[in-house]
Amino acid sequence: MKILIINGPNLNMLGKREPEIYGSETFEDYFTQLQFKFKDTELSYYQSNIEGELISKLHEANESFNGVVLNGAAYTHTSVGLGDAVASISIPVIEVHISNTFAREEFRHHSYLSKYAKGIIVGFGLKSYDLAIENFLMEQ
Amino acid sequence: MKILIINGPNLNMLGKREPEIYGSETFEDYFTQLQFKFKDTELSYYQSNIEGELISKLHEANESFNGVVLNGAAYTHTSVGLGDAVASISIPVIEVHISNTFAREEFRHHSYLSKYAKGIIVGFGLKSYDLAIENFLMEQ
Amino acid sequence: MKILIINGPNLNMLGKREPEIYGSETFEDYFTQLQFKFKDTELSYYQSNIEGELISKLHEANESFNGVVLNGAAYTHTSVGLGDAVASISIPVIEVHISNTFAREEFRHHSYLSKYAKGIIVGFGLKSYDLAIENFLMEQ
Amino acid sequence: MKILIINGPNLNMLGKREPEIYGSETFEDYFTQLQFKFKDTELSYYQSNIEGELISKLHEANESFNGVVLNGAAYTHTSVGLGDAVASISIPVIEVHISNTFAREEFRHHSYLSKYAKGIIVGFGLKSYDLAIENFLMEQ
Amino acid sequence: MKILIINGPNLNMLGKREPEIYGSETFEDYFTQLQFKFKDTELSYYQSNIEGELISKLHEANESFNGVVLNGAAYTHTSVGLGDAVASISIPVIEVHISNTFAREEFRHHSYLSKYAKGIIVGFGLKSYDLAIENFLMEQ
Amino acid sequence: MKILIINGPNLNMLGKREPEIYGSETFEDYFTQLQFKFKDTELSYYQSNIEGELISKLHEANESFNGVVLNGAAYTHTSVGLGDAVASISIPVIEVHISNTFAREEFRHHSYLSKYAKGIIVGFGLKSYDLAIENFLMEQ
Amino acid sequence: MKILIINGPNLNMLGKREPEIYGSETFEDYFTQLQFKFKDTELSYYQSNIEGELISKLHEANESFNGVVLNGAAYTHTSVGLGDAVASISIPVIEVHISNTFAREEFRHHSYLSKYAKGIIVGFGLKSYDLAIENFLMEQ
Amino acid sequence: MKILIINGPNLNMLGKREPEIYGSETFEDYFTQLQFKFKDTELSYYQSNIEGELISKLHEANESFNGVVLNGAAYTHTSVGLGDAVASISIPVIEVHISNTFAREEFRHHSYLSKYAKGIIVGFGLKSYDLAIENFLMEQ
Amino acid sequence: MKILIINGPNLNMLGKREPEIYGSETFEDYFTQLQFKFKDTELSYYQSNIEGELISKLHEANESFNGVVLNGAAYTHTSVGLGDAVASISIPVIEVHISNTFAREEFRHHSYLSKYAKGIIVGFGLKSYDLAIENFLMEQ
Amino acid sequence: MKILIINGPNLNMLGKREPEIYGSETFEDYFTQLQFKFKDTELSYYQSNIEGELISKLHEANESFNGVVLNGAAYTHTSVGLGDAVASISIPVIEVHISNTFAREEFRHHSYLSKYAKGIIVGFGLKSYDLAIENFLMEQ
Amino acid sequence: MKILIINGPNLNMLGKREPEIYGSETFEDYFTQLQFKFKDTELSYYQSNIEGELISKLHEANESFNGVVLNGAAYTHTSVGLGDAVASISIPVIEVHISNTFAREEFRHHSYLSKYAKGIIVGFGLKSYDLAIENFLMEQ
Amino acid sequence: MKILIINGPNLNMLGKREPEIYGSETFEDYFTQLQFKFKDTELSYYQSNIEGELISKLHEANESFNGVVLNGAAYTHTSVGLGDAVASISIPVIEVHISNTFAREEFRHHSYLSKYAKGIIVGFGLKSYDLAIENFLMEQ
Repeated sequence: MKILIINGPNLNMLGKREPEIYGSETFEDYFTQLQFKFKDTELSYYQSNIEGELISKLHEANESFNGVVLNGAAYTHTSVGLGDAVASISIPVIEVHISNTFAREEFRHHSYLSKYAKGIIVGFGLKSYDLAIENFLMEQ
Repeated sequence: MKILIINGPNLNMLGKREPEIYGSETFEDYFTQLQFKFKDTELSYYQSNIEGELISKLHEANESFNGVVLNGAAYTHTSVGLGDAVASISIPVIEVHISNTFAREEFRHHSYLSKYAKGIIVGFGLKSYDLAIENFLMEQ
Repeated sequence: MKILIINGPNLNMLGKREPEIYGSETFEDYFTQLQFKFKDTELSYYQSNIEGELISKLHEANESFNGVVLNGAAYTHTSVGLGDAVASISIPVIEVHISNTFAREEFRHHSYLSKYAKGIIVGFGLKSYDLAIENFLMEQ
Repeated sequence: MKILIINGPNLNMLGKREPEIYGSETFEDYFTQLQFKFKDTELSYYQSNIEGELISKLHEANESFNGVVLNGAAYTHTSVGLGDAVASISIPVIEVHISNTFAREEFRHHSYLSKYAKGIIVGFGLKSYDLAIENFLMEQ
Repeated sequence: MKILIINGPNLNMLGKREPEIYGSETFEDYFTQLQFKFKDTELSYYQSNIEGELISKLHEANESFNGVVLNGAAYTHTSVGLGDAVASISIPVIEVHISNTFAREEFRHHSYLSKYAKGIIVGFGLKSYDLAIENFLMEQ
Repeated sequence: MKILIINGPNLNMLGKREPEIYGSETFEDYFTQLQFKFKDTELSYYQSNIEGELISKLHEANESFNGVVLNGAAYTHTSVGLGDAVASISIPVIEVHISNTFAREEFRHHSYLSKYAKGIIVGFGLKSYDLAIENFLMEQ
Repeated sequence: MKILIINGPNLNMLGKREPEIYGSETFEDYFTQLQFKFKDTELSYYQSNIEGELISKLHEANESFNGVVLNGAAYTHTSVGLGDAVASISIPVIEVHISNTFAREEFRHHSYLSKYAKGIIVGFGLKSYDLAIENFLMEQ
Repeated sequence: MKILIINGPNLNMLGKREPEIYGSETFEDYFTQLQFKFKDTELSYYQSNIEGELISKLHEANESFNGVVLNGAAYTHTSVGLGDAVASISIPVIEVHISNTFAREEFRHHSYLSKYAKGIIVGFGLKSYDLAIENFLMEQ
Repeated sequence: MKILIINGPNLNMLGKREPEIYGSETFEDYFTQLQFKFKDTELSYYQSNIEGELISKLHEANESFNGVVLNGAAYTHTSVGLGDAVASISIPVIEVHISNTFAREEFRHHSYLSKYAKGIIVGFGLKSYDLAIENFLMEQ
Repeated sequence: MKILIINGPNLNMLGKREPEIYGSETFEDYFTQLQFKFKDTELSYYQSNIEGELISKLHEANESFNGVVLNGAAYTHTSVGLGDAVASISIPVIEVHISNTFAREEFRHHSYLSKYAKGIIVGFGLKSYDLAIENFLMEQ
Repeated sequence: MKILIINGPNLNMLGKREPEIYGSETFEDYFTQLQFKFKDTELSYYQSNIEGELISKLHEANESFNGVVLNGAAYTHTSVGLGDAVASISIPVIEVHISNTFAREEFRHHSYLSKYAKGIIVGFGLKSYDLAIENFLMEQ
Repeated sequence: MKILIINGPNLNMLGKREPEIYGSETFEDYFTQLQFKFKDTELSYYQSNIEGELISKLHEANESFNGVVLNGAAYTHTSVGLGDAVASISIPVIEVHISNTFAREEFRHHSYLSKYAKGIIVGFGLKSYDLAIENFLMEQ
């Protein structure tokens, strides 16, 4: 099984930024742990701050992956285009969030992605990614 | 580890009701599978159609369980009291939903529980419960 | 034909409460008249102030009645759960209101039940129940 | 007893238009059945697509009928003037709708007529008219 | 091919009214040019200030035309009934506007017609009509 | 000076309808008094319940009157078309209302006409018309 | 008859301020003309920029005037207290505005005074005051 | 004088829950103090987490108490039914809140009870109950 | 203990104004009774119709009183400045209202003061002041 | 005449994505047909998923094209920046949409581009592009 | 150059009030520093808690100053009258705020002054005043 | 001191675009003047039309600059991501706007950046940048 993790804007700052919300580990560190934990799954990772590049990556993933774990970060709340991209591909996309977006500002309570997602996992810290991958494995 | 699953109103109709949304398995059937799958975890199950009984059960759980998996069903969207109950106890509560509530009516997009939950899992069918239990086990 | 009339919260106060809105007859008195009038129909009556008991009663009715006349009273305007219960059963439910809810406060203009009801009858006083039963008989 | 049925815009298309919502019988056909069913009642029928003509007809009805069954159709949701006309006459007006307007678009959930109506009957197909007439007869 | 152009309220004032928005040519003048330009198409023209007459004309057109070019003018923004009329007929209706309604008052940004239209053409001056007819010819 | 008074829907019921709001005098009676009071002014009067006829009458007035006193009644609050008609003519239009619309329902607080009117006079009973005519005379 | 004209904030700038909206005459100049025109009426004039002084003046007026012409200016749109003051006195208060407030910003469309006013006169320039006085004289 | 104190959902957790908001004393402890302080008043106490039971208790109180002190807790903000129950009884009901609900989340600023209450006392901690009883004694 | 009662706009009209809402006693009369009742408390009284004077008085009170009973009247609903003044002083302020503001117009349901108040007492008539003073005495 | 067609995000998926909404032809295929059809017009085509690249391309087009046909796709509804870009250039821009955006989700009904566009063409499938080009040719 | 600094309500409490938001220096202290820093500029200072006095001071300033630095404080968010006063004078007015109003309550995000201001400076503490004066000097 | 000026979308068109709003000088011209004026400050300049590139540049600036002057242009109003980027870095960011955004369209009144900014400077033309730099120098 081939799974692509896509992270949106500012998530490259993880571990450097607002640790009281996101913790102090970089995503790259965590990704290594994920690869170790899910040895039999082919995991890939992509991050961009550019909305359009995230859209393009979703299109590409459609050809070469079995599923996507997508943390749209800020674009979750503002990007009709990212939602359309999720709708435009046939492989399943799981939406994840590290922090509990529903315990934060009002504008973070709405997602343009959720409607088209296979499922949504919110607020488990980096463990949200583990759960998403677990779910892909359950379905095998 | 002792975990209590609490199901809210109409979930006793699972397997009998709107199978195109919720599938045709009863929750009791599924609970047996969960117990089998998570043999080392002490799982309990409670369902009520009465908001106040769900609130009382959360209070009780505080004394005798390590965590709660809560599917508030319709009360998710209307019950300030159920949210207050989650806030009033010290054990972690994971909010789950079987269907993708964000792909349904507008009034199902808001939850009074999410703000106080350890995390939220939405839309994976009955597998949402599996993921919640997995998360409790990850934290051990 | 077996029809169940379900009355929601505060309707046990009928005849004792705000007579300028609801009149001064108790529902029990009126129910006797209805039974007399519709001799060939098997009418039953249930009232509860508890949302969850109304939900449970709708589930039960599904097994043993041909239709329900439901006056959700205050829960009409706040209960997603009661609406879900109506949607979860296969027998037809007619929504009735004694007073003209549209001539009262704004928050009484919306109903969570109407969408799933066979039809809605509002504002004819206790005659709203007669009309609902008449409609069930028309369909025989 | 003399009762006037008034139908608003597009109801002349009944039986020709969107049969999945309104059925395939013309209102004229149905009116003949109503006259047959309610032999002792003097039924009349009027239809217009013009808001102001409906208003004028309500004024006229005040002089020569005992009650009106009014299906304002689209004007129900937009016409303050039709509501004012109902308020301006002393004979009772029952508001009816063929389809369940509450299960359709949001803008069909509000009625400018309901506040002034004797009662409201929604969603019973053409039987909504039967029930309205039944109610007038009950009051005799 | 037979096409009917229907113009709504105040469009009879075209050429006389607010020329900075609508230009100074009357629609009758322009219609002559259209007939000359589209020689092989049978063009007809109807204007009324009365909402209900526009509705009736749409019903009639269903019998004798292949398509309608509809400029609902002010009724575009307020008439549920005109929208219902478009929905009630089987021939295609193209919605046109002379001015750019989206560059004007907020209340002109919503149309009750668009949802049911074959397509919408806005802001090209009288050329909006040309484009609508062109589109009908493309589909032949 | 030639002035046209235009009255909208239901104002033909004046004196017959809701006298606690509008008084018990018919407008025709009052118009005779106005003619007597303003002997040197050529007053005319028109009433229609049909929105489109009111629009057409405004267009005509442009040719033969010096000003219009317009009581749009219910159409005041719903008719973009009547507002457009006021905007489309070059003679001044004074908007009047008999009752204090701001002391009534919320939906009567907004007028589509006011923006284009020479001035607005509200709540003086039938004297609102006197004041409008006075104003036209002041400007001579 | 004794009438008090009360002008609210910034109206002391009349004739000095935004002449394209308010003209270039000071109110004092105009008041002299009014006194000349209505010789038999005892006219007084008061202006303050302070909300509470306007409230106090309305209270005082109750003892010594037959009516008030009130231009609340900006306080019209924000002052619950000025509205309460109008409601608290028994002499009639006519609300006037020089400019057409309905043709200006949205926040000038709502008045806290109108509900309690004898009538409202808007947009006739300084002639709005003339009309208000005329109305008081009509009622004598 | 006989007074019933009714406490709504989660108030059984008082003293165990969120002490920074509600303090650390249980209500039972406090009730003993109240009985001691108001020796000449017959005080009773009832708590339930179930909305419908609170409604029923209000109905019962009508027969046997002179007044009710009601802390509806979370149901304050969501229960039309509890408000209707207050309206349906003839003895006075004083609404109390321990915390300052207006300094908390937006959804706690609205109460369905206040409109029908004799008075409202908010934010004095448990002293809110003292004040309510004091008020009943003042009226004796 | 020194307590200052501050009354806002129009409360000087108490006893003269809308007695069906506020009763017919002047506040000065009542204040004499309060002084008599609370002999051991040093009560002072201040009233102004001017928002800024109320703000200044709150600042001054901070130096010479132990607490303030504030009835902001109309400014309660519109004055951010009065709320800021309450927040800017260190002595406790109790907000009181004579009438049940929640049973009146929508715009009286919001208070800019409540968030910063020690507590809020609404709807007990002039007894609201008694209760506020009682509360200050409880805390001694 | 030189015309540039600019397509926004996800339109590279045309023909591969949601064919029930957009059809199964790629835009490149269609572009070849357009070039063939409009032989005397110099047509160019640009697509990007990146909002900022679309903005930059509009700036460039200003130097070398006579007009732009712009399908902003998802950015239509969220991009103030794309709207500003249209406003910042002097060549005309026609806004087009393939599907009827007004028959889809609410958030697709608003466009940040329309206000600045020469005209808007919605819902004619790929023929929307034909019509836009036709319009440019009409103006030559 | 003569510049007037005008401070609104509660700013007289600066240095005494909520120091975590506004710091602990009084404005008078700071004003001395400003005069020292801008030796060649004639600085004056005015503070009032009364909205109408602020309005009057703006009018006066028009005669004798070259510019105004205005901190409307709470009136910024509620005073149409203060905004009108800014619009009514011809000298430039710079709006300043000490705290970052956009990081505080929602109701502090809107200003009735900004639209008419030469510019707006927010959140630099007392340095906001320095920057405003700097800007006036830049323009000399 | 090292300061980076970051300009958002369409600001590369400055001097070419809508000069009545933004003036006719290019930003590059102005930047040269700024460097000349602030000789002792190391000023750098970056512009991009791509939201994600602006985000990335803010991240980079964190390592090598003492502060940022950010004109987010259109992204100010729509980009949660740009706001998150400001929050994610530890050096201060001053938000500037050339035009008075509060005097333009409603959607330009809200900023996703302001909450996290050191301060906000709006409407001084290109001088807004001067003031921001002045403020950085004041803090040295």
